[in-house]
Formats: sequence, structure tokens, C-alpha cells
Amino acid sequence: MVKNISYTAGTVRLLDQRRLPLEELYLDIQSPQEMAEAIRTLTVRGAPAIGIAAAYGLCLAADLCPECTPDEFEGYFSNAFALLAASRPTAVNLFYALDRMKAAYLPIQTKPVAIIRDALVAEADAISLRELEACRAIGENLLTLLEPGSGVLTHCNAGGIATVQYGTALAPLLLGKERGIDFKVYADETRPLLQGARLTAWELMEAGIDVTLICDSMAARVMQEGKIQAVVVGCDRVTANGDVANKIGTYGVALCAKYHGIPFYVAAPLSTIDLETKRGADIVIEERGAEEITQGFGVRTAPEQVKVYNPAFDVTDGDELVTAIVTERGILYPPYQASIARLFQD
Amino acid sequence: MVKNISYTAGTVRLLDQRRLPLEELYLDIQSPQEMAEAIRTLTVRGAPAIGIAAAYGLCLAADLCPECTPDEFEGYFSNAFALLAASRPTAVNLFYALDRMKAAYLPIQTKPVAIIRDALVAEADAISLRELEACRAIGENLLTLLEPGSGVLTHCNAGGIATVQYGTALAPLLLGKERGIDFKVYADETRPLLQGARLTAWELMEAGIDVTLICDSMAARVMQEGKIQAVVVGCDRVTANGDVANKIGTYGVALCAKYHGIPFYVAAPLSTIDLETKRGADIVIEERGAEEITQGFGVRTAPEQVKVYNPAFDVTDGDELVTAIVTERGILYPPYQASIARLFQD
Repeated sequence: MVKNISYTAGTVRLLDQRRLPLEELYLDIQSPQEMAEAIRTLTVRGAPAIGIAAAYGLCLAADLCPECTPDEFEGYFSNAFALLAASRPTAVNLFYALDRMKAAYLPIQTKPVAIIRDALVAEADAISLRELEACRAIGENLLTLLEPGSGVLTHCNAGGIATVQYGTALAPLLLGKERGIDFKVYADETRPLLQGARLTAWELMEAGIDVTLICDSMAARVMQEGKIQAVVVGCDRVTANGDVANKIGTYGVALCAKYHGIPFYVAAPLSTIDLETKRGADIVIEERGAEEITQGFGVRTAPEQVKVYNPAFDVTDGDELVTAIVTERGILYPPYQASIARLFQD
Repeated sequence: MVKNISYTAGTVRLLDQRRLPLEELYLDIQSPQEMAEAIRTLTVRGAPAIGIAAAYGLCLAADLCPECTPDEFEGYFSNAFALLAASRPTAVNLFYALDRMKAAYLPIQTKPVAIIRDALVAEADAISLRELEACRAIGENLLTLLEPGSGVLTHCNAGGIATVQYGTALAPLLLGKERGIDFKVYADETRPLLQGARLTAWELMEAGIDVTLICDSMAARVMQEGKIQAVVVGCDRVTANGDVANKIGTYGVALCAKYHGIPFYVAAPLSTIDLETKRGADIVIEERGAEEITQGFGVRTAPEQVKVYNPAFDVTDGDELVTAIVTERGILYPPYQASIARLFQD
């Protein structure tokens, strides 16, 4: 399995996601500055992965000044923290991870740097482990819903390289593979940025999983041909009533699944469930630049000056279209308003 | 309006569709050989356009030997006919057009070449006019179904450059524009070959029509946002029961339209209705090469060796999903088995 982030004293090795699938290139990051730059430039992407990378970025601060006094190190730490916090300001997991690291550091800030360093590394490991366990639990839960040998369609990339090891939507496929449970996976290419073609197809091939790449417009056809028994996707946000915001195209796939009577599962770590937002219609959808569509491959494929609409996400009505929302703490079914509230009460 | 094929003595001027939308380049074709090559290399594409181009290609044979004896010309004609017939062997309209040209030629083959030439040009003009009239009638019929000012979504390219002047699915938009009736058009880019981005967007912009380019995966989202009041698509074949084979992605759009209660119209010249084929499931769908998906723009965007499924067309269930099939002889409604049979009885 691909290891997208690995730490050894003084170095964080990052898989460079920008080069995939043409090149599996790893970058050795040796300072918090370099890590902030790697996050900013999307060398590492995916909210949980960014959090983990930032946590290890803070460990590098301690590696850089083993002989510092505690006071001197305080300056190093604050500087590194600020740099990393500014690297990708909208990623919630980034702040979650940085805050955990700071909470681990403060009680021991007068100790020798060697001790601080070990504590920071232990905390970063713990953050990474928590994400891994969430992914694994989501995978276990999803495995109970999928028929071995069946056809599974996924959209965009919710794999290990966006999180850690197993990913979310891809977790049952990767976990299954470890146990000899095979699936026949269809990966939507996911226009405009082709995360499905570039990342999902690559990740599943690396794991030896049977994956077939299709264009987004072919999902309905493969369902009609009886090739798909379940759809599994990740999500960017689930609202309090179970509506699902995810990569553009998810909603269309859900409509096609509904028509064909194919179950539609959403893999959602608890961290993505947003109780503050009541329903999908309340989510403001980010619109991105026209060039992603008109010359997404460096080659112009549309007329100059053409008007373009490029929403980055869409919203799928949970109660109508989502068969189950699968979290690390269990499987939720409609009506989601109630099942989500129950989960958070427990 | 774009004139994709125009004939003046000795020359057929063809719009080079391969260069669109980056360049609006016209090629002057001066022999049947050159015309056969232009058809073979997709300089001209779209079944009706190919038929018209081939018909004028035969006129060029007469232009090339004004001083020939009728016997000498017979050799020229047969040679040109064979070359053109071999240029794109699966295009039905090509043979329809060549056969009409031969039928016009045979009764006068002993006359002077100048007279033959005039008769051939008249026949090619008649073929072109018949296509134009069919497109115009389809456009008129579709205009009765579309609310002025409304949002119309289309998939792939069924415009004038694939036929003549108005096209089929685009005919109501182009005809409407001439009369000051505006629509807000959304054009799916139509992966993998991007006919929507390259051709439809270009053609509508040239006509001054309000067109917005989206990825195929965004069609469901724009419907959800209330931006679409009707879908209009062309078709490659309609079976006797009203099932519609068209460019891959059409079926998914139809499912999204159904869910949102948006009417889904298919523009179908009578020449595309295939009474010999009972239903859509009987149609063998052409599968095309993986490269169209993995490096369709000259840039590799998927892993080497990835398995790809690339069906070129899909089939939409007529009675379930198609609100109306619009022909030059009237508008058909479900159940199509009956309405199509009735049309051909008349």
C-alpha cells in the first residue's frame, strides 16, 4: 500500500500527488517552511492528509534545533506553527491537527528539546493513527454492505493518498484486497481535474485491485449494463439532515443509481458531519476558474471567450438518494436528521 | 451562420472541423480524390454533411474534364464514385447521396459533359436542400415545444456543421435566433472527444447565441439549480419502438431530466429512424480506443496500462425517458411503437 506521508528523524517523506500518475515521486521535507510550501502547492492534498503532514511539520522544528534552550525553541515552534497555519487556510483538519500539537507542547515547553521532540512525534503519530483507525472502521463498516466480487463504482478520489493508508470510500476495496475479497471497480475520471483518472485509478492499480476507468458520462451506461452493484463515494461535508456535498458529478451518479435501484453509499468520517449547517441548500458551492474546463490539460479545447460554469461541488439529497452514510462509529440510515442526531447524542 | 460546405464551379469549400474551435479554416477541394480524403480524415463529419460533400465531390469530376467525350467522362465518374464510396464505409447518408447522384447521371450519360455537369450540380443542390428543409422543419417543430427565454441543455453536437445550416438539435436555437427568440443554452462538453466544447459551443457563439459550457458531470447540478427547462439532443439511430442511440452520456442526461421533471426531446430526421431494429438493446454499441480517455488531448492523464471502457454511444429508453421525438414530418409521442408505425404508414 502507498505510504503518502512517512516521518523519520529530521525528514518527512511526501508522495508528490501533483506528479501522479505519470511519476511516483517522493519529496523529502526537512523544515516547517518546506512543509508549508508543500501543502500550499498541493504536493499533499486531502484534508486528513494535510493535517497529518502539518503535525509532522512541527516535529521538524524540533529536529532542526536539538541543542536549543527551551526559550529558543519556543520561537522556532511559534514560527513553524504560524507558517503551517497559513498554508491552506480553509482546511479544517489542518487546524485540528495544529491545535492538538500545540496542546501536547504547552505542558512540557520548559523541558529539553529532545523530550519535546519525542512528545511532538508521539502526538503526530497519534493523529495519524486516529485517522487510520477512522478509515479502517469506515472500511469495515462498508465491507458489511458490499457483496464480494460485485461491481463498485466510485467518483473522484477518497483514497489513502487523501487521508492515510485506506482512505474512506476506497477503504473497503483496499481492506478487502488484504483479505482476498475482490471487487470489480469502475472509476469515474471526474472532470474537470480528473482525480479519478489520475489518483483513484493509480491507487487501486498499485494495490492490485481490478479497476476500469470510464468517463463520467459513462456511469449511467455501465449501470444499465448491470455492471454496478453499489456506488461508494466520499464527501466534503454532510449537513445535519444528511445532505451530502461532494465533488461535482456525485449528484448525477446518485440519480443514475436511484433509477437503477443500485445502493448509493457515502463514506463520512465524523469530522465531515457538520451539525451547524441544517441542509444542503445552505451550503455555498465554490465556483472555480474556466481554464480547468477550457484548457485543463494545457491544451485549449474550447473557444476563446466561451462562457463557462464550473461549480466544484454539488449537493445530493440524503433522504431521497443516499442509501446509507457510513461513519467510523456505525452506519446511518434515513431519515438522517434523526440518525445523525442519535449518533452525536451517544 | 456558418457555411460548412459551399460549391462554386471547380471548387468545394469545406470548413475544416478538425481545427475547430482554435481556427476557422476552410479548405478548397478541387477533385473527387481530395474530397474522399477530406471525408476519410474527418475534415467534414456528420452523416448528412458527408453525403452532401460527396455529392459535390462528384460534380468536381465533371469540372475536371469539360472537354471529355461522354465515354471518357464515364471513366472519370466511375472512378470518382468508387473513391468516394470507399471514404467512410459506414455512413448511410454517403451511399444515399452517391446513389441519388448516379440515378441523376445515368439517363443523360451520353450527353455533353457540360449538360451532365449542370445536372449533377442540380442534384447535389437538391440533396443539400432536402437536408436543409428537414433541419428547418425539425427546428420549426421544436420551437413549438420550447418556451422563449428558457434554459436548454444539449449534449454532443447536432448542429449545422454536422448537417447543413441549422442542424437538428440546434435548429430551434439557430432558427429562433433569426427571429429574435433567445434561449439560454448549456452545452455539455461531451467527453471523451469534446464535441460539445469544441463544436457546439463554437457554433452557437458564432451565431450570437447565449451558450455556457459545462462538464458532463455538471448537467444534474444545473438542472437542480432550476437553470434548465428542456433538454434537446440529436441521435444516431431511433429503433422501431422509439429507443434512442446517441453519443455516450445522453442516457445519463435523460435520467437526470426525468428526475427533475424536465422534458427531454430528441431531434430525429426520418433518415435516422431504423424500422429494421426492434429495440435499443438490439443495437451493438461501438467501443473505441482507450487513448481517447487516457490521453485525449495529447497529454497523458491516466496511469499507463489502466483498463478502460469506452463505449461511443448509449441507448435511452424511449417510452420511459423521451418526452417527444421530433422529426421533419411531425412530433411523435409515446408509445413510440405506435406513433412511429403511424408516421411511416402515412
